[in-house]
Amino acid sequence: MKINEQPVLTWIVLLLASSGTSAAGSQTADIGQGQKRAAVCFACHGEDGISQIPGTPSLAGQDRNYLETALYAYRGGQKRQDPTMNAMAQPLSDSDIINIAAYFSEMVPMYAGGQRGACGD
Amino acid sequence: MKINEQPVLTWIVLLLASSGTSAAGSQTADIGQGQKRAAVCFACHGEDGISQIPGTPSLAGQDRNYLETALYAYRGGQKRQDPTMNAMAQPLSDSDIINIAAYFSEMVPMYAGGQRGACGD
Repeated sequence: MKINEQPVLTWIVLLLASSGTSAAGSQTADIGQGQKRAAVCFACHGEDGISQIPGTPSLAGQDRNYLETALYAYRGGQKRQDPTMNAMAQPLSDSDIINIAAYFSEMVPMYAGGQRGACGD
Repeated sequence: MKINEQPVLTWIVLLLASSGTSAAGSQTADIGQGQKRAAVCFACHGEDGISQIPGTPSLAGQDRNYLETALYAYRGGQKRQDPTMNAMAQPLSDSDIINIAAYFSEMVPMYAGGQRGACGD
């Protein structure tokens, strides 16, 4: 039995990692609700998901599951300790987190040089 | 005195926030050294700073000071608790962190749809 457990576990991990579903499970994200709930994030992270404040991350186009995990960690207050983000995440429901993460992840990241839409490396 | 302290403090905060220097102070980043030191990050965050692993953030074009702050927090192990990142950040010097943050922040973010260089919203 021992010999076969590792490959099976590996496959389960890979399947979960590549599923594209929310970190919370199979709940479908509501982008519209995410946009409404994300309004409170815009002051720092930008309405277009591009932060203009040094030290604050841009969220546009960021990995959805990563954003969810980060928000859960900020809400929990243990794994991520940041006074502002802990306070901001506190009132969020699981659905809020899933929707907000989906909303920002669908945004277009800013191109190099700070110009959205200016193509080229 | 009390009346004037707040505006002065506000200006100091704003000046620091807009200085564009590293979070660690005025140390100049060495992008080349950052690239070398960042090699260990590529397996998960992508050689081009675009993660292909759900749950792992892309770093290309991310705010430089934010990346520094995150790395310091992972290295400290208190404010950000993540077994992988705590272990990865542990051996980094302050210069490593400044250089790695600068290296990723200078990269071109991926465009929407997963195609680097495919212009358009």
